[in-house]
Amino acid sequence: MNSLFGQPLSVLNVGLASFADAIVQRGGAATRIEWAPPANGDAAVGTALARLVNDAKVEAANAQAAERYLAAQPRLEGIGIAREVVPGMGSRMILHAGPPIAWPRMCGPMQGAIVGAILYEGWADDAAKARAMAESGDIAFEPCHHHAAVGPMAGIVSPSMPVWMVRNPTHGNRSFSNLNEGLGKVLRFGANGPEVIARLKWMEKTLAPTLQAGLEVLKDLEIKPLMAQALHMGDEVHNRNGAASALLIKRLVPALLKSSAAPADAAAVIEFIAGNDHFFLNISMAACKAMLDAAHGVAGSSMVTAMARNGVEFGIRVSGTGERWFTAPAPLVNGLYFPNHSIKDAAPDLGDSAITETAGVGGFAMAAAPAIVKFVGGSAQDALANTLAMTHITLRRNPAFTLPALDFAGTPACIDARRVVDTGILPVINTGIAHKEPGVGQIGAGVTRAPLACFTQAVVALAS
Amino acid sequence: MNSLFGQPLSVLNVGLASFADAIVQRGGAATRIEWAPPANGDAAVGTALARLVNDAKVEAANAQAAERYLAAQPRLEGIGIAREVVPGMGSRMILHAGPPIAWPRMCGPMQGAIVGAILYEGWADDAAKARAMAESGDIAFEPCHHHAAVGPMAGIVSPSMPVWMVRNPTHGNRSFSNLNEGLGKVLRFGANGPEVIARLKWMEKTLAPTLQAGLEVLKDLEIKPLMAQALHMGDEVHNRNGAASALLIKRLVPALLKSSAAPADAAAVIEFIAGNDHFFLNISMAACKAMLDAAHGVAGSSMVTAMARNGVEFGIRVSGTGERWFTAPAPLVNGLYFPNHSIKDAAPDLGDSAITETAGVGGFAMAAAPAIVKFVGGSAQDALANTLAMTHITLRRNPAFTLPALDFAGTPACIDARRVVDTGILPVINTGIAHKEPGVGQIGAGVTRAPLACFTQAVVALAS
Repeated sequence: MNSLFGQPLSVLNVGLASFADAIVQRGGAATRIEWAPPANGDAAVGTALARLVNDAKVEAANAQAAERYLAAQPRLEGIGIAREVVPGMGSRMILHAGPPIAWPRMCGPMQGAIVGAILYEGWADDAAKARAMAESGDIAFEPCHHHAAVGPMAGIVSPSMPVWMVRNPTHGNRSFSNLNEGLGKVLRFGANGPEVIARLKWMEKTLAPTLQAGLEVLKDLEIKPLMAQALHMGDEVHNRNGAASALLIKRLVPALLKSSAAPADAAAVIEFIAGNDHFFLNISMAACKAMLDAAHGVAGSSMVTAMARNGVEFGIRVSGTGERWFTAPAPLVNGLYFPNHSIKDAAPDLGDSAITETAGVGGFAMAAAPAIVKFVGGSAQDALANTLAMTHITLRRNPAFTLPALDFAGTPACIDARRVVDTGILPVINTGIAHKEPGVGQIGAGVTRAPLACFTQAVVALAS
Repeated sequence: MNSLFGQPLSVLNVGLASFADAIVQRGGAATRIEWAPPANGDAAVGTALARLVNDAKVEAANAQAAERYLAAQPRLEGIGIAREVVPGMGSRMILHAGPPIAWPRMCGPMQGAIVGAILYEGWADDAAKARAMAESGDIAFEPCHHHAAVGPMAGIVSPSMPVWMVRNPTHGNRSFSNLNEGLGKVLRFGANGPEVIARLKWMEKTLAPTLQAGLEVLKDLEIKPLMAQALHMGDEVHNRNGAASALLIKRLVPALLKSSAAPADAAAVIEFIAGNDHFFLNISMAACKAMLDAAHGVAGSSMVTAMARNGVEFGIRVSGTGERWFTAPAPLVNGLYFPNHSIKDAAPDLGDSAITETAGVGGFAMAAAPAIVKFVGGSAQDALANTLAMTHITLRRNPAFTLPALDFAGTPACIDARRVVDTGILPVINTGIAHKEPGVGQIGAGVTRAPLACFTQAVVALAS
């Protein structure tokens, strides 16, 4: 012992900082390794986790789920009307983002967007009547995710809305998303004024059929190669979609001009898309949903197949635990706020768009998009670090989505709920921030983390 | 002395490796610092350099030249026909890339392209007659750079060709470039078959007037913001122009559809541009030329205002040395070759496109475009290292062109010929590689360096 302390020591301090502090105070040096016991030391969760770790059945199930995710090849099939194409869509039903939530508990932007959808559908002729109708229970509110769909922010899909239709021929599943309205006063941030409703009508009557005419000329568009190319062009296809949107325009415009669309409509549609760098987001989301639905329902798998927020709760679903949601309070986002706004004005984390991170892009592919830090905060080094951190909680690298800045390593993909609980490393999410009052719109953007409690519940459920 | 060698030593070895080798052989450790005497120890050049270093007049001249480069705001003014708009363009004149060169010494691709231009102009009706005419001395061959113009690879501009017109209103100068034909069999790589001539005719008769109609609706397009945005989207606007081309399309298409252009022409033009990720290159080059011409002609300045290659010689011009070229043999490029090709098939470095590096983009902005290493070779780390190395030989960072991966530092810009000679760090250039025989086309791409001899001559000339 004495001879050990007589020589220069290299000290690694794992976990609690106070041990290292003591060494440093006495003139020594210690390298600190961040560590905390799984689930912050919760014994029941630790026991459940121990049952799942190195379990051959879980490993095999995860391998199968991950392979299904990797093998999915989502294609943009076309545009349909929600009531006609979204499975289980009722005639008095409105879909929303995140896990299930009843009207009274919904956040401001979601209530505002639902009022807008009721006005858009013509079920009521003013906002007060629309609100009364929403409160009355006459309308069924269900998560997009229960209908193979996803929507950003409030995520509202009502029966007359056009939706992107994505098909994964490898496994035969379909997915859906609404169309992106652009920035400013838009339904997904809870705005519901006349200009919002007029734009939604234009999207239904002009944008959707014109795009559909173009898509018929283009035939099925493979989405993964387009996402992959965008990752080489500074997008992470969640909060940066400028390259993907431009690539889509490049493919779409010649098709549109050869299509049956009226030239004036084609011109208006192109101008609308060209003015919205987020236009591709909803396609990206639907593609991610299609890849992950392919991986869902593998008995015993701890792979996360959805992360979604309704502005009150953050929910996840896991491949091996069926339709069940594991929820925790949605966090507030400590991001970059627009002038005259702060976290005090913010709605908690909102939207189905975390489906992109669940699929290994978005925050998980931040190394592809260093310029995003101007929008969500942090440095270029943070962007790399976020991607690298996610390798500790994922089952695979996706070779279809490569990251130039990391010498073309694949994006970390297939979140393993076990590893999240074991390491305490929480999935990183690049997100927009909505004002907590309906109708104000976006007030910032930032990087947030999925709450640990969702994953501990999933681990306990899977182990039992 | 003995007490010095009795303790553990930290050795820095500057320059010659053999000193460090000796220490390592005896069990010691040495950190090696790359260093060579200026101009490889050439005493005459060293003397000239010493006269220029820390010379207040040179410093002031360089500050002025750099400020002029930074203040330039090139705008895309429109498209004209070379004979009508390029200053000094003769009716039997053909412009080419790089420093001046007579027909017999020209490389294969340049001769092939000139034969093509003669056929395109209708001055001869077959290749043999065209070649005889080129040999006869009836046609004046002059560098693009002598006419405020730049052209990629062979850089051929003949009187009937449409040219981009760029204007820098800050200093009142104009610049010009031909239009990009796409990849494959194209004039700039020396191809001159019927399909090449037919495409050039279509570019003159349809592409140029259609684009001009669109540009008239768009009005003057600011080029620097577009380049800046593309640098945030994985382009270095020399060998990667996919983002910039897509951004241009996004701006151009709505304008085209509102213009007087016939819909069928608009559709054909959009399809042509959408099929060519390099379409923006020639606009990028003309913009760089406009910025650098603004900085040219400042007495005493050692700032490099042009680097250009004719496939035989590499030439540079310096702000303070007027119209003079300083030349050295053009290097062969040790890059990535397409299947079935190697450096044995390559023409030496060719084209005016190194104007992009001279303006601080291209290889100098490689940190913005890590994905380019799949095309030119190396790793993502090399891309960062190339940009960082260029900070040692440049006068400024360009705040208009920021690099996300380097936390939004500006691109290193304004090459100082003194610093190149002093450090031995040679300007890095991302380049395409042409087959040495006319008409074969591109056979690879790579990273090359400007030859030191150009810069030593410039330093000597400036000092005398």
